[in-house]
Amino acid sequence: MHRVSSLIGCQKSVWVALLPFLMASVTSLRAQNAGAPRASHPPQAFFFPWLLHSPQVHANDKVTFRFRDPNAHKVVLLLEGAKPAPMKKGDHGIWSVTVGPLQPEYYGYSFLADGVSLMDPSNPLIKPNLLNPQSMVYVPGPSTLPWQMNNVPHGVVHHQFFHSDVVGDNRDFYVYTPPGYNPRGRKRYPVLYLLHGFSDGADAWTDVGRANIILDNLIAQGKAKPMIVVMPLGYGAPQILKPGKLGNMALAKENLTKFSQSLLTEVMPRVEKDYRVLTGRANTAIAGLSMGGGESLFVGLNHLNRFAWVGAFSAGLLPDLNQEFPRLSAKDNARLRLLWIACGEQDTLVGPFNVKLRAWLRKKGVDFTKIETPGVHSWMVWRGNLAAFAPLLFRKHSR
Amino acid sequence: MHRVSSLIGCQKSVWVALLPFLMASVTSLRAQNAGAPRASHPPQAFFFPWLLHSPQVHANDKVTFRFRDPNAHKVVLLLEGAKPAPMKKGDHGIWSVTVGPLQPEYYGYSFLADGVSLMDPSNPLIKPNLLNPQSMVYVPGPSTLPWQMNNVPHGVVHHQFFHSDVVGDNRDFYVYTPPGYNPRGRKRYPVLYLLHGFSDGADAWTDVGRANIILDNLIAQGKAKPMIVVMPLGYGAPQILKPGKLGNMALAKENLTKFSQSLLTEVMPRVEKDYRVLTGRANTAIAGLSMGGGESLFVGLNHLNRFAWVGAFSAGLLPDLNQEFPRLSAKDNARLRLLWIACGEQDTLVGPFNVKLRAWLRKKGVDFTKIETPGVHSWMVWRGNLAAFAPLLFRKHSR
Repeated sequence: MHRVSSLIGCQKSVWVALLPFLMASVTSLRAQNAGAPRASHPPQAFFFPWLLHSPQVHANDKVTFRFRDPNAHKVVLLLEGAKPAPMKKGDHGIWSVTVGPLQPEYYGYSFLADGVSLMDPSNPLIKPNLLNPQSMVYVPGPSTLPWQMNNVPHGVVHHQFFHSDVVGDNRDFYVYTPPGYNPRGRKRYPVLYLLHGFSDGADAWTDVGRANIILDNLIAQGKAKPMIVVMPLGYGAPQILKPGKLGNMALAKENLTKFSQSLLTEVMPRVEKDYRVLTGRANTAIAGLSMGGGESLFVGLNHLNRFAWVGAFSAGLLPDLNQEFPRLSAKDNARLRLLWIACGEQDTLVGPFNVKLRAWLRKKGVDFTKIETPGVHSWMVWRGNLAAFAPLLFRKHSR
Repeated sequence: MHRVSSLIGCQKSVWVALLPFLMASVTSLRAQNAGAPRASHPPQAFFFPWLLHSPQVHANDKVTFRFRDPNAHKVVLLLEGAKPAPMKKGDHGIWSVTVGPLQPEYYGYSFLADGVSLMDPSNPLIKPNLLNPQSMVYVPGPSTLPWQMNNVPHGVVHHQFFHSDVVGDNRDFYVYTPPGYNPRGRKRYPVLYLLHGFSDGADAWTDVGRANIILDNLIAQGKAKPMIVVMPLGYGAPQILKPGKLGNMALAKENLTKFSQSLLTEVMPRVEKDYRVLTGRANTAIAGLSMGGGESLFVGLNHLNRFAWVGAFSAGLLPDLNQEFPRLSAKDNARLRLLWIACGEQDTLVGPFNVKLRAWLRKKGVDFTKIETPGVHSWMVWRGNLAAFAPLLFRKHSR
């Protein structure tokens, strides 16, 4: 708040320096702005959200969120993993709330202003999502946290583009190569295929899940084997993202089967051609969150000739297990090096899917590792899942 | 609009299907949401912005923007390169405006709601920026447009992370490798260092400028030589982004000199080590937009032993040319293969910097190419600049 009020005085000189560098849309407001920014006429002024300090992470890990909305009746903070927190209106039409102390983490959030979920315009850190883009706040913690950017050797994240003949569109995937990866060297690496959830884009596991940073840290600490991580776009029928398509079970099935086909026949061959990968089932893992957990089970358990390591984080999506896994049996235990079924204890998918899945696997005599950790259907759980799952992969004797 | 009203009826079933897949922050609103979404009580309802069709690009290239804000007094569309357009309030507190027809392009935009610039919560396409994040709308055009994603061979965009000892922080840069680039092959490529503007992050040239797509197309059409493009973070003193620091000339100078030092001693050696690059001045170019244009001139013209190709797009930043280029003279024409000074005709920096720069270069007898194209200080100009500049590079006889 102090920053805003002190800046209202010096705003003119700030503008003079800023103007040449700002977008045309902002510069075209110059005339409108010149005499306007007065506290008494906030609705008419152009207020540059960058001048507002939000979010402000305090030394005690409390966090203050601020949002200027002079005429809203009600503004509520929606913070990932927390209850909605009403914000209070103060001077200059600025709403604010202080929450916490918060556990060191990355939190998605938005402001629910008169019922509409908005990104924080003062915060450049975005939580990308195809249905519900939000802002993100980072509460720093000790360097031992898996997702903390440390001064350790870093891998590289490659953004790949291709035309999918299976789906019929231009699409992308991401590839993490570990520190020290040398495309000209002799060393080859095992591969983890890591799948996002419904509503995410292909960038979710890096931008939100911090998969590359988590792997950097695990590898630097000697906890995980250096590996390549491939993060494809998880939709075989992208129109499933359109309103009104969600209940369409035929489309959901097409989404699943075409994704599987594109992964197996388009993405994997390309990865195996372009990167120094170890092929064969013992060197190939698949895991994912939510929809991507369902996809990992569907692709992995139906192709044990290609994947020996399968992980499902808070999985959902598969309505009929007998139909989806017609051939899975206790005989497959010899091929399955790891089947890792994780879910947040407070996740609404624990009962409807994960308990049912585990009971079905037990009935079939298929071995699995059950993981339940505190948390809802959130990235806190999935970052933790990746940090716990990756160290188990590609070991000689993991079971 | 039609989509909203029809969805208010079916919202309940949409929610049932959606719920398992959405973030905890949204699911925690379930109770609040269950009976609420009625047009008569919009401020209390939770309205999922994804249900609103915005932006809607029509077949005639007109574009409709929609934004729900039931209690705002005034909402204005700020569209890149256009005058602010007032929006009109309709049913359910939804503001809308239709503009155009628009030229096929990518446009940054935001909604100025009671004076506050907001991203469009219905649109997942973000225009990232460290001071002024916005939304982005794409009006598709013919495949001949340089930034159009076509079914041609695509290069790869590498996201690199490192600790800068010069600046003292962890930072990133991006590297584009052209289609057919083979890290194990014998072929080596020339390198363009491509710099963003003030307030951008290192992702600006790919996410907003579409540099990788532009290069893919130019290379596929045989118009540009296959090249590697390196896009570093352009701040030597990142604290310059904080409010109140902008007028600080000492900090601006530190920003420039430390950026130059980090590029020359940290980024370039790493690129030359990790990629199949052709080294030497004839194979090395530097160009940038706005602040990055000033940086390109500063780095390039002061290191003609390393760069033979220099481009400035809508450049600014350098207050005293005699001081910044103490040794530049007509003798350098023999080393400068291309000095390309471009600016939008309506850019406010044409007069204050570009006209002055060109007069100074003429007085020194230094040859340059002057480019002025219609437009303000905007990405439309810079995408066009890159598409016109890249084909000139690394030719035997470009002058």
